[in-house]
Amino acid sequence: MSSDLIKLGRHAERGSYDFETVAAILDEALICHVGFTISDGQPVVLPTIHARIDRALYLHGSVLAQWLKNARGSKLCVTATLVDDIVLARSAFNSSMNYRSAVVMGVAEVVESEEERNAALEAIVEHVCPGRWADVRLPTDGELRTTLVVRVPIEQASAKIRSGPPSDFEGDLATDFWAGLLPLRTIRGEPIPHPDLRADIPVPGYLRS
Amino acid sequence: MSSDLIKLGRHAERGSYDFETVAAILDEALICHVGFTISDGQPVVLPTIHARIDRALYLHGSVLAQWLKNARGSKLCVTATLVDDIVLARSAFNSSMNYRSAVVMGVAEVVESEEERNAALEAIVEHVCPGRWADVRLPTDGELRTTLVVRVPIEQASAKIRSGPPSDFEGDLATDFWAGLLPLRTIRGEPIPHPDLRADIPVPGYLRS
Repeated sequence: MSSDLIKLGRHAERGSYDFETVAAILDEALICHVGFTISDGQPVVLPTIHARIDRALYLHGSVLAQWLKNARGSKLCVTATLVDDIVLARSAFNSSMNYRSAVVMGVAEVVESEEERNAALEAIVEHVCPGRWADVRLPTDGELRTTLVVRVPIEQASAKIRSGPPSDFEGDLATDFWAGLLPLRTIRGEPIPHPDLRADIPVPGYLRS
Repeated sequence: MSSDLIKLGRHAERGSYDFETVAAILDEALICHVGFTISDGQPVVLPTIHARIDRALYLHGSVLAQWLKNARGSKLCVTATLVDDIVLARSAFNSSMNYRSAVVMGVAEVVESEEERNAALEAIVEHVCPGRWADVRLPTDGELRTTLVVRVPIEQASAKIRSGPPSDFEGDLATDFWAGLLPLRTIRGEPIPHPDLRADIPVPGYLRS
């Protein structure tokens, strides 16, 4: 496991190597940001969806997608972040965010096995919308041929977590400034049927929960 | 402006170079992910908060933060992403996400001017919590000395946006699968006062709106 990644200055104590911690963040985060290096050391960071199966992280896209072409066989960094609270300290200096982030570094390998590709695509659909894989038109052979699935092993990984109330300096405690947390939550709203959806097709139960 | 970044395969039509579009995404996104390249072409992607002033993006951190040490003077990619809806097509293949992402590539320059540093820190605090800068203990000279502020010009930038209902193949329209959007919204909850906050300090108005 990487050890230098999380020594990020002031708050090295926030780092964690625990696989279960990393896995839980990857599973809860709807999207991730994948970084790769193109010519001249230029990094590129793009959002994408992902899924985890055991100790592997899967990404997918079109076989034509330039970023996946760049990504395959090269060093990646995949980062998923959940923002929990705005941390309002009495001082601007100690103000912060409560968050959980997972960083996975590794080389993207193209998945060739049909079984593993199907498992990865199912995991990605279920990650975004649990219950959907059993209620969607599954990929055809032609669609599968134009879809690239890559696997990044979750070996060199770390997590960073900040939680709890703001940490104020002793000297600031007597000030009149409000201090505390402003919680942030992502909620799923009411499903919006496609304008051309037949009226006799009800909203599936897995979208209502 | 970069032109190859947004030619990302299937959906090149989603790309946009418009500065106002990029700026609006940067302003609405609470956090961004910054990518930089360390030794051996290894990219690293970390979450951080940011703020925009005109055509500059500002990031900050401790002078001890390894990532900022790595970032200064080197090529960065800063990406901010807003996820609007889960896009449920009748087919797994056409399922997607509605999102808006902005990508800024450039070299991070350390901000030396006191005036610009203060403006950047104010913008960062106000970006996370509008109204807070006028109601927080401002940085001391000592705190400012341990804070590094870097500026990335918003010159080489692009946006990608997907919106609207799912795009199904003609042949899938007769299936019985539900199709439509599942909206996602980030909401701010009730402020949670610090356990040791004096009882006579009320929740500020800017946190209640």
